[in-house]
Amino acid sequence: MRNQDIDACIIPGTDPHAGEYIADHWKEREWISGFDGSAGTVALTLEKAGVWVDSRYFLQADEQLEHTDFKAMKMGLPQVPDIIPWLIQELQPGQTVGVNALMFSVNAFQTMQTSLQRHGIQLVSVDLIQSIWTDRPAIPKEKLLVYDVHLAGQSATEKIQALRKNMQHADVFLTNTLDEIAWLFNIRGKDVDYNPVAIAYALINQKEAVLYVDAAKLDAEIIDYLRKEGISTKEYLQIYEDLKLLPDTSQVMFDGAKLNQSLFETLPKNCNFINQASPISFMKSIKNTTEIKGIRQAMLKDGVALTRFFRWLEDNVADGKLTELSITDQLHAFRAEQEDFKGESFATIAGYAAHGAIVHYKADEKSNIPILPKGILLLDSGAQFLHGTTDITRTITLATPTLQEKQDYTLVLKGHIGIATAKFPTGTRGSQLDILARKAMWDMGLNYGHGTGHGVGHYLNVHEGPQNIRMDENPVSLQPGMLISNEPGLYRTDAYGIRIENLIHVVKDSVTEFGEFLKFETLTLFPIDTKLIEISMLTADELSWFNAYHQEVYDKLAPLLNEEERAWLQEKTKAIA
Amino acid sequence: MRNQDIDACIIPGTDPHAGEYIADHWKEREWISGFDGSAGTVALTLEKAGVWVDSRYFLQADEQLEHTDFKAMKMGLPQVPDIIPWLIQELQPGQTVGVNALMFSVNAFQTMQTSLQRHGIQLVSVDLIQSIWTDRPAIPKEKLLVYDVHLAGQSATEKIQALRKNMQHADVFLTNTLDEIAWLFNIRGKDVDYNPVAIAYALINQKEAVLYVDAAKLDAEIIDYLRKEGISTKEYLQIYEDLKLLPDTSQVMFDGAKLNQSLFETLPKNCNFINQASPISFMKSIKNTTEIKGIRQAMLKDGVALTRFFRWLEDNVADGKLTELSITDQLHAFRAEQEDFKGESFATIAGYAAHGAIVHYKADEKSNIPILPKGILLLDSGAQFLHGTTDITRTITLATPTLQEKQDYTLVLKGHIGIATAKFPTGTRGSQLDILARKAMWDMGLNYGHGTGHGVGHYLNVHEGPQNIRMDENPVSLQPGMLISNEPGLYRTDAYGIRIENLIHVVKDSVTEFGEFLKFETLTLFPIDTKLIEISMLTADELSWFNAYHQEVYDKLAPLLNEEERAWLQEKTKAIA
Repeated sequence: MRNQDIDACIIPGTDPHAGEYIADHWKEREWISGFDGSAGTVALTLEKAGVWVDSRYFLQADEQLEHTDFKAMKMGLPQVPDIIPWLIQELQPGQTVGVNALMFSVNAFQTMQTSLQRHGIQLVSVDLIQSIWTDRPAIPKEKLLVYDVHLAGQSATEKIQALRKNMQHADVFLTNTLDEIAWLFNIRGKDVDYNPVAIAYALINQKEAVLYVDAAKLDAEIIDYLRKEGISTKEYLQIYEDLKLLPDTSQVMFDGAKLNQSLFETLPKNCNFINQASPISFMKSIKNTTEIKGIRQAMLKDGVALTRFFRWLEDNVADGKLTELSITDQLHAFRAEQEDFKGESFATIAGYAAHGAIVHYKADEKSNIPILPKGILLLDSGAQFLHGTTDITRTITLATPTLQEKQDYTLVLKGHIGIATAKFPTGTRGSQLDILARKAMWDMGLNYGHGTGHGVGHYLNVHEGPQNIRMDENPVSLQPGMLISNEPGLYRTDAYGIRIENLIHVVKDSVTEFGEFLKFETLTLFPIDTKLIEISMLTADELSWFNAYHQEVYDKLAPLLNEEERAWLQEKTKAIA
Repeated sequence: MRNQDIDACIIPGTDPHAGEYIADHWKEREWISGFDGSAGTVALTLEKAGVWVDSRYFLQADEQLEHTDFKAMKMGLPQVPDIIPWLIQELQPGQTVGVNALMFSVNAFQTMQTSLQRHGIQLVSVDLIQSIWTDRPAIPKEKLLVYDVHLAGQSATEKIQALRKNMQHADVFLTNTLDEIAWLFNIRGKDVDYNPVAIAYALINQKEAVLYVDAAKLDAEIIDYLRKEGISTKEYLQIYEDLKLLPDTSQVMFDGAKLNQSLFETLPKNCNFINQASPISFMKSIKNTTEIKGIRQAMLKDGVALTRFFRWLEDNVADGKLTELSITDQLHAFRAEQEDFKGESFATIAGYAAHGAIVHYKADEKSNIPILPKGILLLDSGAQFLHGTTDITRTITLATPTLQEKQDYTLVLKGHIGIATAKFPTGTRGSQLDILARKAMWDMGLNYGHGTGHGVGHYLNVHEGPQNIRMDENPVSLQPGMLISNEPGLYRTDAYGIRIENLIHVVKDSVTEFGEFLKFETLTLFPIDTKLIEISMLTADELSWFNAYHQEVYDKLAPLLNEEERAWLQEKTKAIA
């Protein structure tokens, strides 16, 4: 830092591709601080250093940062400034903060820059880590795979044509976002945990579509495929040279919430920049009929695997030998029996008892606890099948539930049904519907701190945009074909967590003199624990949805099960009233 | 226009004070075109002229513009461009559009300017009307009135102090908004229909508070009052001179959605402009206990007047001699019997049968129809009492309702109760609650095109911000003390309209481990027609709210009524089940 006249720097736990899961190569924050939580950011001056963490990681940061030069900066606690205010407090006007521009989006960089500049502090792009991290892991070089049009439902050629139409006046669309690239070109990869994507950049203009990717990823089949779809390939880092050569008059479109600042800085300064939500993100969110068909198949397989798993769990819990980790492994084994299973879509959350109240809990060797025939188990898991991605949460009682457990569970179920049965005019946003998931809780002074629903990819990322269902405003309206989760929850600290999650998609309902109306169809197929329901709290309409859903689950899964499994499912899905 | 090198101009139906009701002096659009609807904008080039109107005014525009040079431009119809696209289409790059900067907000002016500039067209401020409108009416010069602190609940001195705190880094806050000025200085006026405000500007800095107002409005009492509150007065137009003299280094805060462009252009160009939602608007929206007490009193008076009115209506409708206009007059007469009645808070909407489906209907001599003992009457009206403003809609059947009428009415009632009984955490926005008013309708493929609730002033404008309950996003959260309408509706074109409106205010409910929760309390006191209710469509909770509300209405109004009136009210408020 002294050599380069840098007075402070920020090292985040991000990568150049706006990824949720990042390759070891880019784990700069973990390398420098030793803190390996999924969220956390280092900031350091020439005298002081800290790792900013949220409440999920207070304990872990204390442990991992003990005996280091880094202080755990616990966000949200009094007297703990955020990073930018801390830098403003520690630095003088005229001093300089350096960041690796690869790790920040254009929008994030500009926001930091504006705040610092107001106090006379400069923000500059500089890679301080590259030269000192000598044993840095390589960027993954897994093979690229063709994603067959029979699974994708639309060829890459057609998608690129549609993107070109959506580019309007732009000459060039530039993206570093891996699931957008995978969707657009109908390719998949294995470079990242849980997300079947490949590390790459892409640049599309009205004539060319270029995939910037390590040549080691390409075999004869994919080279042939890409050529046929009119996609040329160049080396991963060649994009920097190509961006520099863009004509000064170019209209360059990118999504500044995702594009990294490093690529942006490479663009000729006189280009006209069109910084807006990625058209690919929107196109990708509308699932075509082939994709929906694949997702329905994935739901059948997931339903069968979960039937076997929960039956096995019931049979074995009395022994007292099960643990959060062992059931996670067993669930994996049942899913892996299904054809075209490609792995989990995220790290399974098996939260037993009080662990269920930790929303982002992930058991490890240290936190792992035995599962006993009492209390409540929350299990949030998902699969990547070649033809679709799943994400399901079920909460079950392992004994006779208490009244409060039943009341809490039934409130969550009422919220879940509120979303599942919603009907709404075209143009409605997720934030307008969110209250349907919370109303029964709010009436009792209860609430949950996470969103109600996130978009889900098709054999892609389990979290995708642009739509969602949250309390926060999001201007994107829900449109036919969008796939989204429906997952209200309720968490009693130190006691238990409850969440009921299905995937749903938006379908047309009716056209009346008052406009076009949409509704949701539930796609996930697995029973919801009836032992935890306080039936008197459900309305006739809610009961009717519930029993119809269970009937559908049984009808669709039964043909895929053996006799004992079928009997188990019949018992679990029998009508309540 | 030719003399001043202007190629086109826009003449809107607005005034320099962001007013909903405007003085004749500023009715430039009406003067030049003859079209006198409440909404509509003239645009003209040297060859063509049009009046842009929305669907409410298609018929009226056709009639009033016949045999003139103005064409009725019916917005929303195919082939009818909006004004700015029309100007872009009619003009060439290099040409100039002129507008009277007094009539446009800063934000509106800038939006137009940006669109026109993209096509090489200049937008300039020029007053084309002043010199040619020779018999222009004068600006009203009604006397200013002191609004006693016993009614306002907080002195002007205290309010100005609070504003200064809310100005943060700003040196000056500048406003042209009449209800903000009236609230801040605890003054009222008679210059505008329905809104008890005076035409003025105001400028507040850390030392001074200046009211710019015609000296003819001031008598000894108000001069004395203002001096005591530390408010100085200057001539209305003196503000232009004072703005020019502001130091170049001033931080000037204003609400660009309301401040007129003419004042903005007068500010020294090097000032630092802080364009944000007015802090007064927010402060004013939170009613203090004295204001709420006054509003409760207003509700009692309104309830008594409405009891007398609806009883009279029932007694006289059989004669067939009542009309929309005659009942409007009679309602006025009953309200005027009440002490401290100052007039209507807006033009009464008495929409009988098909007229009820016209959301902004206002009967005139031509549209007026007799009210017969059949069908449905929608009556939306409000009063200005010295101690509070009311706004209430009731819809009644004048015979035996049809099943569809009852179903529609009950859906509206369910929506009304949905809002009235809502409980929600601190930070919730109106757009999150809006669906509670619509859900029962959406479930049936029905909807209404207007908002669910607007803010209401305290002996001020019946429509005020910043809060509302609408489908559209509004970042303002609902806070304790905010007064708002609850008015879902349902409209069957050519048949009838239904709306049920009460005023409600936000109050604290409870604090739990999940946060602070708020709820609404209903303030309006008048029965809701039970003959139109399909009781089987109501839930037990809805029925229970309804009967408790009717009991409260009876208990509070009965002591203020004579024996016959009390008997009538008892019948109207008796429990249903």
